[in-house]
Amino acid sequence: MNKEKLNSKYKDLAEFYGYRIPLNEFFQCSLSVDCVVFGYHHNDVKVLLIKRGAEPFMGKWALPGDLMYPDENLNCAAMRVLRDLTGIENLFMEQAHTFGEKDRHPIGRVITVSYYALVNIEDYNPKPHSWAKDLEWHSLSNIPELAFDHRNILSGAMQKLRTNLWSRPVGLNMLPQKFTLNDVQQLYELILSEKFDKANFRKRMLNSDFITPLEEQQSNVRHRPAKLYKLTDNLNPKS
Amino acid sequence: MNKEKLNSKYKDLAEFYGYRIPLNEFFQCSLSVDCVVFGYHHNDVKVLLIKRGAEPFMGKWALPGDLMYPDENLNCAAMRVLRDLTGIENLFMEQAHTFGEKDRHPIGRVITVSYYALVNIEDYNPKPHSWAKDLEWHSLSNIPELAFDHRNILSGAMQKLRTNLWSRPVGLNMLPQKFTLNDVQQLYELILSEKFDKANFRKRMLNSDFITPLEEQQSNVRHRPAKLYKLTDNLNPKS
Repeated sequence: MNKEKLNSKYKDLAEFYGYRIPLNEFFQCSLSVDCVVFGYHHNDVKVLLIKRGAEPFMGKWALPGDLMYPDENLNCAAMRVLRDLTGIENLFMEQAHTFGEKDRHPIGRVITVSYYALVNIEDYNPKPHSWAKDLEWHSLSNIPELAFDHRNILSGAMQKLRTNLWSRPVGLNMLPQKFTLNDVQQLYELILSEKFDKANFRKRMLNSDFITPLEEQQSNVRHRPAKLYKLTDNLNPKS
Repeated sequence: MNKEKLNSKYKDLAEFYGYRIPLNEFFQCSLSVDCVVFGYHHNDVKVLLIKRGAEPFMGKWALPGDLMYPDENLNCAAMRVLRDLTGIENLFMEQAHTFGEKDRHPIGRVITVSYYALVNIEDYNPKPHSWAKDLEWHSLSNIPELAFDHRNILSGAMQKLRTNLWSRPVGLNMLPQKFTLNDVQQLYELILSEKFDKANFRKRMLNSDFITPLEEQQSNVRHRPAKLYKLTDNLNPKS
């Protein structure tokens, strides 16, 4: 079956390459995608998990993930899988890391590509679909046992988020559309597990081009209202 | 063949997942690795390319890359392929990006994972091996036509290098073991295509923890000898 699908013009090329197995035997891997959706809510960072309603790891919590169809582009597969399992549509996700340990999946050789995104939890209303039997936002400080190597995949995405926080406005997608500098500082301190000096943090953030001041202030607050900011346009995450 | 290799316990699970094709048909992909080795020499950034001595794209320049064996871990494949084609051993490479467009390879469905590394060209003496018929360092300002989507893969790795330059000491692997702050500034200006104010650049670099001063100065120079620095230990690139 693989042999027929391989372009016949190239089928006998294995000898040129000196491979120790026939060329068609290379074509026995499967690709999957796993989606790490981080959400911010009430000064806590959470991740969206599904409860698996299918073997393997039936009943375990897991990142929303599934196999890529053979006729599907990889990036499209990530968006399709997230939509199929959680109903979340058109979420821009960035590739995080590819995991290719040979025994990572009990069914066969499955290499998985992880994607991540950051959202404001209030903007989404995910529901379990397809073989996902349940779905919940879990605080990063209290993650249950996860299926496959999903604990590793989650850690890798978290590391990526931390690394990118100062070089790109990735974390700011988690905030509401209008936010204060204090909101930004709380988010950064939470993600980086680090306290920052207020004046220095403000200077660094205002120098970053990540945010743009609005001609507005907070309303309905007891303290002196703080200036509001928005995410600077056209600063989408890049790979 | 796939059917036999798939774990028989899970073979009939496709119905649980609601797949529109049998489970075994997902297992028809191949993985490859492509290595982007950047080298610094005479105030120029170059990349190591091989000339392909096998179809497809025979005779074209390409990144050193090849298929992963089915019994091989992905990261090991990257190091093995670089060694097989160029003789470079034990080079620590970081994953850059995974390319999974469905028509990217003429033989069949091949998803490729790119890896990148930065070296001082004088520390390596690569030679073409196996089906690589030639090998050369090419200046980034003068890249020939490349096989497959390797031009994209190269651009992606370059973008990654630029993004990571301020958050991690990635670029500094390109310098000799002992270097001056001026060497660092030249390298950063070259990679980022940007001029920096000398005093500000020095302050930023010295605050970064990337480099450690040595108790040594330049010798045999006509101008006032500059202080020498080394890369701070234990700051390996992380994913």
